[in-house]
Amino acid sequence: MAPFLSKRDLQFQLYEVLDTESLTARPRHAEHSREVYDDVLNLAYNVAEKYFANHTREADLNEPHVVDGQVKLVPGVAAAMKAFRDAGFFSAHHDEDLGGLQLPWVVMQAVQANFQAANMGSSGYPFLTIGNANLQREFDTEEQKRKYLAPLLEGRWFGTMALSEPHAGSGLADITTSATPRGDGTYSIQGTKMWISGGEHELSENIVHLVLARIKGAPAGVKGISLFIVPRYRVNEDGSLGEKNNVVLAGLNHKMGYRGTTNTLLNFGEGGETVGELVGEAGRGLGYMFHMMNEARIGVGMGAVMLGYAGYLASLEYARERLQGRHASAKDPSGPMVSIIEHADVKRLLLRQKAFVEGGLALGLYASSLVDDLATGPEEGREDTRLLLDLLTPIVKSWPSKYSQEALSDAIQVMGGAGYTRDYPVEMYYRDNRLNPIHEGTEGIQGNDLLGRKVTQAGGRGLTVLLERMHADLKASEGLEGLDGIRAALTTAIAQNRDAFGAILGRAAELGPDLYLANANSALEMLGHTVVGWMWLRQAAAAARALPGARGDAEGFYRGKLQAARFFAVYELPKVRAHAELLASADPTTHEMQGDWF
Amino acid sequence: MAPFLSKRDLQFQLYEVLDTESLTARPRHAEHSREVYDDVLNLAYNVAEKYFANHTREADLNEPHVVDGQVKLVPGVAAAMKAFRDAGFFSAHHDEDLGGLQLPWVVMQAVQANFQAANMGSSGYPFLTIGNANLQREFDTEEQKRKYLAPLLEGRWFGTMALSEPHAGSGLADITTSATPRGDGTYSIQGTKMWISGGEHELSENIVHLVLARIKGAPAGVKGISLFIVPRYRVNEDGSLGEKNNVVLAGLNHKMGYRGTTNTLLNFGEGGETVGELVGEAGRGLGYMFHMMNEARIGVGMGAVMLGYAGYLASLEYARERLQGRHASAKDPSGPMVSIIEHADVKRLLLRQKAFVEGGLALGLYASSLVDDLATGPEEGREDTRLLLDLLTPIVKSWPSKYSQEALSDAIQVMGGAGYTRDYPVEMYYRDNRLNPIHEGTEGIQGNDLLGRKVTQAGGRGLTVLLERMHADLKASEGLEGLDGIRAALTTAIAQNRDAFGAILGRAAELGPDLYLANANSALEMLGHTVVGWMWLRQAAAAARALPGARGDAEGFYRGKLQAARFFAVYELPKVRAHAELLASADPTTHEMQGDWF
Repeated sequence: MAPFLSKRDLQFQLYEVLDTESLTARPRHAEHSREVYDDVLNLAYNVAEKYFANHTREADLNEPHVVDGQVKLVPGVAAAMKAFRDAGFFSAHHDEDLGGLQLPWVVMQAVQANFQAANMGSSGYPFLTIGNANLQREFDTEEQKRKYLAPLLEGRWFGTMALSEPHAGSGLADITTSATPRGDGTYSIQGTKMWISGGEHELSENIVHLVLARIKGAPAGVKGISLFIVPRYRVNEDGSLGEKNNVVLAGLNHKMGYRGTTNTLLNFGEGGETVGELVGEAGRGLGYMFHMMNEARIGVGMGAVMLGYAGYLASLEYARERLQGRHASAKDPSGPMVSIIEHADVKRLLLRQKAFVEGGLALGLYASSLVDDLATGPEEGREDTRLLLDLLTPIVKSWPSKYSQEALSDAIQVMGGAGYTRDYPVEMYYRDNRLNPIHEGTEGIQGNDLLGRKVTQAGGRGLTVLLERMHADLKASEGLEGLDGIRAALTTAIAQNRDAFGAILGRAAELGPDLYLANANSALEMLGHTVVGWMWLRQAAAAARALPGARGDAEGFYRGKLQAARFFAVYELPKVRAHAELLASADPTTHEMQGDWF
Repeated sequence: MAPFLSKRDLQFQLYEVLDTESLTARPRHAEHSREVYDDVLNLAYNVAEKYFANHTREADLNEPHVVDGQVKLVPGVAAAMKAFRDAGFFSAHHDEDLGGLQLPWVVMQAVQANFQAANMGSSGYPFLTIGNANLQREFDTEEQKRKYLAPLLEGRWFGTMALSEPHAGSGLADITTSATPRGDGTYSIQGTKMWISGGEHELSENIVHLVLARIKGAPAGVKGISLFIVPRYRVNEDGSLGEKNNVVLAGLNHKMGYRGTTNTLLNFGEGGETVGELVGEAGRGLGYMFHMMNEARIGVGMGAVMLGYAGYLASLEYARERLQGRHASAKDPSGPMVSIIEHADVKRLLLRQKAFVEGGLALGLYASSLVDDLATGPEEGREDTRLLLDLLTPIVKSWPSKYSQEALSDAIQVMGGAGYTRDYPVEMYYRDNRLNPIHEGTEGIQGNDLLGRKVTQAGGRGLTVLLERMHADLKASEGLEGLDGIRAALTTAIAQNRDAFGAILGRAAELGPDLYLANANSALEMLGHTVVGWMWLRQAAAAARALPGARGDAEGFYRGKLQAARFFAVYELPKVRAHAELLASADPTTHEMQGDWF
């Protein structure tokens, strides 16, 4: 079987493109070293290989189902959870006094990347738990932390986020789940939640749902939404488990992919009272949730990258081994067949995958490094970092979700009929990843977030910071060999972005919000490709610097990086123009389309 | 459930865009009328709805499997085959003396479209049989026609095409299945065939495989390949069935989609002799097969269109019914939710689907009308028609295969999490259609066919004919209202095609075949989008002519056509430029990439 992840590329991204080692100069990471990070990453790879990759297909073929009221998963999942827990990954990024290693977030993302690539479905359980715990660490009372956070950090309890309802998916403002004060500071929760991943299983002693609900009498819209801790089993004061909390499994969703993660419809307050505790202040639930959501969105982007990456590696291995046909210039039909990797169109399909998944990985890790800068970087500049991260988040979420799907389609295409069968993993990755443009905010929502909020936030400062950073990298790469193509294409794309954003922002008032946002998707595409072009400039610069001293495999690795950067410059960045022109024109075609004309 | 096909659009395409009714002026169709065609199409819709659409999902969930050596299918398939047979569709396009109705091919394709949209998997069996019979009608001896063709036309026996082998998929030149003369004019067939759709089942009394094989001593390469009729059961002189012919099922392929059509690995000559009859002359097998293959490629394109179309209709129905969110301009969070079809980004996703699937349908039917022109049109101009059809075939095959997949992704996206579940059909269509860019010649092969063969054939006459026809339609549409956008965008795209083909063809000798073909995919994309832009001009012109007299639903229908044409002009045709520039530059990035740089 092909490896699910390139350790070499992960090292390159962390230490040659990003300067992850320099984080050890910050007080929080003073006891770390590159060796510590490498040991952690090796442990992650080994656990992922042994306990996660071993049941990926089995879980796909045997989706979660209910037996005697219990959700049954394939047995490998429980073993994987134990191995993940034993390795300490539930808390590795937390402070030492919470039992953690104080790992930087970028290293933690690289750790998680191993599990996402090995088995996306089983990774869902711990990652949801980690996200849930991150939120509780931020907003819980000390009492709540003792009761709920501690067992989550140990990996004894698992967590979920329960936002959507059957009638309210993207439109969270319309949720109707209610919370009625019980007089003792707790609330009685009543309602139905939809699409809850990890909502019911027997993998952990308890499940802690973070539930959005309305306290009786709260105002309409998002300002009336509060956040509640709702455990599957009630928790006694001493932390022991009490009786069932009447969170009832109403059904499982049957999905095209991502089958390893059970996805549920849950009724709260069915057959008895469901008791919840308010998190933080009433009416601020959506804001708290978005603290978790922004991390979740980077996580979705990284998950998409790793599915695409695993598919790329699988199709690459196949392309090296499969013999078929001859070069177009070959004259002798009885001459030997060549590996299909020799065919230009197969090289195109492989280069395209490489450009998408390695570009996406660079982006996901770059965004994660911004999370570290926000937490531990110099005070000065943190506001700029925050605005840049805010601006990039919709791109980090949606670009890999879309372009890993393209890459996975290419992986299938490289493998032909074989890729279309269950004998190889690429068709599964293709089904799995199709969820990523949907959950944690659809592509449409990301576009509106980018154009409607992020590019105008703080007077457009986020975009200014981004442009400054891109120009700084262009400047720093002057004179490096082999970068002319990517430098020129990126420079052009940046100018097209500047013009297009200038044009549409200048007309925002005149257009009104509906027409202003009508082509938000083009903004997402335009800026997304440009940002990934920037990621390729950064990778190409690192490769060009290292190439003169490299021999053998190392030389090939760096030449591949330069060629993929060239590919992105020649085949992909020219697509920015059409999106820029469309955005700038404020074209009203979709806005003017009428429902009864379809 | 949403309808699987728009009868209204099919009528528009046949009678308002194409002038199908005028075919009744040709001697072969003199006894036909529009009423005859409409009756046939209504029959097709009714049979498709009642006997095909009823088990599409069931067949997806219960893929073919082997029980006691027999391939088991869900029971609905056999009933569907009987209904198809009873309706006379196995032979409807054949001459009356073969039991047919002499239906034009374009009407036959419209008939088949109903079945493809209703149930792609079950449609596979009759359509493979029809393709097989078309080949035998062309090349069989009278004796072979009596023995093999007659029962195929009755639908009592089914047919397959058996080309690929485990080591030879796209590279048919390397097949090794052998044919040894038995001294009585027949041959002993020995070898293994892979990816044989409909290769084994109990739906018909016999299965007639058309098998590519090498007669002992034949030269290497394609010139040594002959074609053989190889029945599952041997056939006695009186047409009755003899003993089993030792065609042995070696396995079933387990696919991501298209599960209704069983797909097999077959061993010929296992456990006894497999006897076959030579078709036509030895060494011309691949040429005969391509007679069938070209029809098959149009069929694949049409199948892709109809899957995309069915998905579009399903997501359209959902978008009309599903309430979520409010307009960006809405101020009151407690105001009523709107149907998601009101949101601009959902309208974009629906318009994009509409542009792709209705554009694809126009293309598939146009190509089918060329098949009619070749068969029954004026003698003068047939060579031009043949060259045009040859040129368009790789586009008709690959463009809808690719862009219906985009459309189906959009259909899932419109429906969000619901679209990702098996509660709706779009995830199934998405899995089904992903095969279409692979089988009957991959997208890579279509690109090489287009740039390597079709644009240079007969001194480039096919391209000249295409350009003439596009210019004629541009001229004919002058002055029509609402066409400015599509006319301007198409004119630009045509000029870009002309420049790019001129540049690359002018350098062909200098570049050599490998580098000349390195960007063949861009040629396919560039010309494909341009041709579909032309199809939208033709639809828009028909709509603009009809609009002044239209009221109510009819008015909405024509306005929708004009808006979709505008969408294609604004959102899609500008993408031609990047492909044209890449092709013209003969960029060597993929050509120069080395296997060990990945």
